Amino acid sequence: MAIESAGLVEKTTETEQLKPLNVGLLGIGTVGGGTFAVLTRNAAVISRRAGRPIRIVKVADKNLELARRVTGGAVALTEDGFALVNDPSIDVVVELIGGYGIAKDLIMAAISNGKHVVTANKALLAVHGDEIFAAARAHGVIVAFEAAVAGGIPIIKALREGLTANRIQWIAGIINGTTNFILSEMRDKGISFAAALEDAQRMGYAEADPTFDIEGVDAAHKIAILSALAFGIPMQFSRAHIEGISKLEADDIRYAEQLGYRIKLLGIAKWRAGGVELRVHPTLIPARRLIANVEGAMNAILVQADAVGSTMYYGKGAGAEPTASAVIADLVDVARLHKASPEHRVPSLAFQPDAVKDTSVMPIAEIDSGYYLRLRVEDKRGVLADITRILADQQISIDAMIQREPDEGESQTDIIMLTHVTKERFVDIAISKIEALPVVTQRVVRLRMEDLG
Amino acid sequence: MAIESAGLVEKTTETEQLKPLNVGLLGIGTVGGGTFAVLTRNAAVISRRAGRPIRIVKVADKNLELARRVTGGAVALTEDGFALVNDPSIDVVVELIGGYGIAKDLIMAAISNGKHVVTANKALLAVHGDEIFAAARAHGVIVAFEAAVAGGIPIIKALREGLTANRIQWIAGIINGTTNFILSEMRDKGISFAAALEDAQRMGYAEADPTFDIEGVDAAHKIAILSALAFGIPMQFSRAHIEGISKLEADDIRYAEQLGYRIKLLGIAKWRAGGVELRVHPTLIPARRLIANVEGAMNAILVQADAVGSTMYYGKGAGAEPTASAVIADLVDVARLHKASPEHRVPSLAFQPDAVKDTSVMPIAEIDSGYYLRLRVEDKRGVLADITRILADQQISIDAMIQREPDEGESQTDIIMLTHVTKERFVDIAISKIEALPVVTQRVVRLRMEDLG
Repeated sequence: MAIESAGLVEKTTETEQLKPLNVGLLGIGTVGGGTFAVLTRNAAVISRRAGRPIRIVKVADKNLELARRVTGGAVALTEDGFALVNDPSIDVVVELIGGYGIAKDLIMAAISNGKHVVTANKALLAVHGDEIFAAARAHGVIVAFEAAVAGGIPIIKALREGLTANRIQWIAGIINGTTNFILSEMRDKGISFAAALEDAQRMGYAEADPTFDIEGVDAAHKIAILSALAFGIPMQFSRAHIEGISKLEADDIRYAEQLGYRIKLLGIAKWRAGGVELRVHPTLIPARRLIANVEGAMNAILVQADAVGSTMYYGKGAGAEPTASAVIADLVDVARLHKASPEHRVPSLAFQPDAVKDTSVMPIAEIDSGYYLRLRVEDKRGVLADITRILADQQISIDAMIQREPDEGESQTDIIMLTHVTKERFVDIAISKIEALPVVTQRVVRLRMEDLG
Repeated sequence: MAIESAGLVEKTTETEQLKPLNVGLLGIGTVGGGTFAVLTRNAAVISRRAGRPIRIVKVADKNLELARRVTGGAVALTEDGFALVNDPSIDVVVELIGGYGIAKDLIMAAISNGKHVVTANKALLAVHGDEIFAAARAHGVIVAFEAAVAGGIPIIKALREGLTANRIQWIAGIINGTTNFILSEMRDKGISFAAALEDAQRMGYAEADPTFDIEGVDAAHKIAILSALAFGIPMQFSRAHIEGISKLEADDIRYAEQLGYRIKLLGIAKWRAGGVELRVHPTLIPARRLIANVEGAMNAILVQADAVGSTMYYGKGAGAEPTASAVIADLVDVARLHKASPEHRVPSLAFQPDAVKDTSVMPIAEIDSGYYLRLRVEDKRGVLADITRILADQQISIDAMIQREPDEGESQTDIIMLTHVTKERFVDIAISKIEALPVVTQRVVRLRMEDLG
């Protein structure tokens, strides 16, 4: 009797293994189309790894004509996302609609229906992630999101599973391809931000409305997610300090270069005694660092952790098939674990839910950083003495300086200074005093620096 | 009644979750000591992730005095590895002895006893991996080996789980820190191999007997493991083509630099229509590639795959705590899955065991590559014509060339040529004909080139 039932259990397991995983796809745009294409093209090799076929059985999209063209009529189509998330034949819902609206309602409905969810929706997770993961826990389902950060680079897996031995100290990532492309163009060609943005739009690296990318919002969504995974803290997107690259001038890129630095838009998350730093801004980094040499639309994430030291992860951060690669990796994970009891699964946010600790985000004035300062000044005796005295009063010491020779007949010039690490509020005070000097003729340009060594 | 037993199941699960994972450690040398230190220091953060404590309960080492010093007397010690693998209180055995001998016997005994195994032993896996993984399957246990390749970089996890959507096309890795340190020194300081090796030994980057590292054997062990994971093929270390760096001359590093290339010892695995390429040798790569700028003892693995494109993984490839980071990541995986049924686990070699296909390794003469050729010739009229005719006869076309001006009073000079991609056997024929020319006064130096673009 005991032997018989053991045999029965084993047989059930085997059947379970061979049964295909049925996927419902919400949205058949760029990434949805890529996911369909890769799952079809690589079906054999994927099931050699997953142990079972993974097949898209239904697609929901407002544009049925597009859906028909992409899927070639092989799959059931609907305009109604809820018809898909309520379909009992579907095991996993892949959400590729994006945004906070209908995407959230559909994900919550899928979870309530006991379906696993795979999503690339960083905006949604960064803002409503805690609520979504709590619902997933309550219903015993997986919400996987490798595609939400850095496209095809398996950075979520690295943080959640690869570096579990470590106390993670900081993360610094080039996690927005559009802005990295623009910065590379500005440097290579010596052109303005506006001209580089036009190039990016022409080449398909920037959207018609590029605000989310160029103002750093997209990168902030991603660093909020990475910081939660790294430190075991809730999503704190709303507390992130965000500056984009739209005000960056070609002059500063050139001066930085002369001083041995590159400017990159970094998402930065740091563990500090008093809380975490969470910020996105253009950042000077030493040109000799590997991450400083990540060019064009590529992404790279540098992680500093106490046992392993520095590790870096590099690849395409966007695009149909790179993002599909991440979506499908999540589907393979789900294929393995969807019938396993939750304690066998990796926690959504790397830490066990009851081990997540709310930790405050430090105000930007309290961060420690080096600074790049560009001052436009009258070319007069004593100017430098006034400025250095103001800095010294704030305990700010200077690491390097360039004073440009004024051009023939020009009465003003630029002074560029790099400071040692100091607290930002001291720099704020110094800048306001420097700007009050009559010889200083423009607002001071201030950029942050990270050594990343 | 049904409700009661459901309650019982849940309670058991909860207890199971909180129960510590008991680890037995075989070998308390560098990596063993690092593993003990990191597990102790980061116990809290590790169990916040794993959902249960992971603790070393027994250590086996011939050097009991050392074991006592490292563990501070907190752990049971034995000189007898078999006493450890036969201890019923131990859930997982961590093997950090290395080599093919006792390490293999202990691992096989642990598997027979139904214990999971975590190992950093690349030599053993590259040679006996197929046998070990078959035994693990038969006994329903996990054999995990993140630490066997590239230290703390989670490259095994990336290949096994992060890139499962892809057909992997090739891997090129700097996977031996000793040789990368030596090559960096040779280039930076313009010194000979022998001098750089001495530096490496003095600084602890090379062992007293450095043969395994400098002759490429260690890198070949690792690329054999990576190729199995990438392509779903058996371990084929014995068929790998292996050349080390001990014959590399400073001249060639300098000439390569002039032509825009760096020389790195790469482990290369390529999927080809007729079989796989599996080789380790010094390789010219364009200096502008990110991987060309990986310096010192650091490791990096570049993976080219059809959906995601290029991804790269960078970090410390050796050392106590970086390697411990990988060992412990495996332990956390085991902590989650050790009571799960095997279909919930990732297959040891990425592919389901019955989906592994034996694929032949191509003889080195059949590979396609670009070549760097350095010829020592009499400085006479017509020499170049003779050489280029021989190359043309073998359909080899020249991509770039340097002819060094002979020094004052010198009758010989160097010709350096880079060829376009061609089959190696054509180059073999051309070289033997070139060496037969009376004006050619030394053996031709031949190095392979990879574009990695």
